[in-house]
Amino acid sequence: MSKHMQRDLEKLQKLVLKMAGLVEESVYQAAKALQDRDVELADQVIEGDNLIDDLENDVQEECLKILALHQPVAVDLRRISSVLLISTDLERIGDLASGIAERLSVLAKPPHVTIPERTRAMADRTIQMVRKSLDAFVNSDAAAARSVIKLDDEVDADNQAILRDVIAEMKRTPDRIDTLMSLFSAIRHLERIADHATNISEDVIYLVEGALVRHHHELLGV
Amino acid sequence: MSKHMQRDLEKLQKLVLKMAGLVEESVYQAAKALQDRDVELADQVIEGDNLIDDLENDVQEECLKILALHQPVAVDLRRISSVLLISTDLERIGDLASGIAERLSVLAKPPHVTIPERTRAMADRTIQMVRKSLDAFVNSDAAAARSVIKLDDEVDADNQAILRDVIAEMKRTPDRIDTLMSLFSAIRHLERIADHATNISEDVIYLVEGALVRHHHELLGV
Repeated sequence: MSKHMQRDLEKLQKLVLKMAGLVEESVYQAAKALQDRDVELADQVIEGDNLIDDLENDVQEECLKILALHQPVAVDLRRISSVLLISTDLERIGDLASGIAERLSVLAKPPHVTIPERTRAMADRTIQMVRKSLDAFVNSDAAAARSVIKLDDEVDADNQAILRDVIAEMKRTPDRIDTLMSLFSAIRHLERIADHATNISEDVIYLVEGALVRHHHELLGV
Repeated sequence: MSKHMQRDLEKLQKLVLKMAGLVEESVYQAAKALQDRDVELADQVIEGDNLIDDLENDVQEECLKILALHQPVAVDLRRISSVLLISTDLERIGDLASGIAERLSVLAKPPHVTIPERTRAMADRTIQMVRKSLDAFVNSDAAAARSVIKLDDEVDADNQAILRDVIAEMKRTPDRIDTLMSLFSAIRHLERIADHATNISEDVIYLVEGALVRHHHELLGV
């Protein structure tokens, strides 16, 4: 590999890690804002999303620059295309965190609705999935990526159980349906964040093993 | 451009068009199944999603093959990376159409809930957005892509109005909340399909004009 390409790949890696760090923090803060009904923290998440959007553009520009200038092959080419796809997942995760934060404008207003106990566990697991999928990417660790995909079943189970609780509460207190709908939506956003962490993990497995495994979990041993 | 590259680009274009055709049909059928409470048609959409998933993998493999073998530059490179990104949006649209179809298992059962009048217009507009964004891609037509992005505001307005109706109905008939939640979810899926058509349009503008415009609609003149 040429020195120039090495340098550009390192620059790309730094950009992705910067974006990943912001996205991870954004999910953490959105989940915390939800638990604590913290509107100020929620507003920070919403404002921070612009920077994540800009970084997605930067990462993609950099990928195309490297493809055009250095015409990488084999594993380097796979790395660039993985980064291209992972950057879109990171951007969506940022959007979804921002979507959770937006729900606080309703959820923070009294009368408050109870946030089901299990939401904290679901948020922890989701944040863990995002973090682990990014670690798996940094370390090119397919085994770690597979463990993230396994976690998604637990988050799906959390999601189902919590949504059942929220719907039951809607039936009991129809006058609080608006607020409960915002809670419902925030939970669904968490679940979609976990889905994107799964996508990232699939891309990592592709990066390491060179086989597109998306939609083929039977090939993953998960 | 070499003859081999020309041939491979044509093959890629055919694959994308095949995928796009299936996705478009899938959205149309899902919307029709929703209107007609047609479980059989819904099941077809759900079954068809596997083929769309397989095609996403085929398209991405083909993109990487072209990048590795022919090392395209300039507009050809942009085309490949656009196709890579567009294939992920198409796959998500297929997933969302399948998600609408899954809601029929609840929505088709009596007692039926009323599907708000405006849902048909929203579905028509959404299908139009998907179709137009793909036509814009095929014809490398940035102006057409911009007109799709403008349509998204109308779909958002439809979405807001319909969801307000559904929530009002939940308050009136709390015993039908389960069914109304399925309707709510189907409408939200439609809205997300329109968002992905917007993403595709942004990628088309990038392909034609060479500037990443995602998240920068102020630069789009829309």
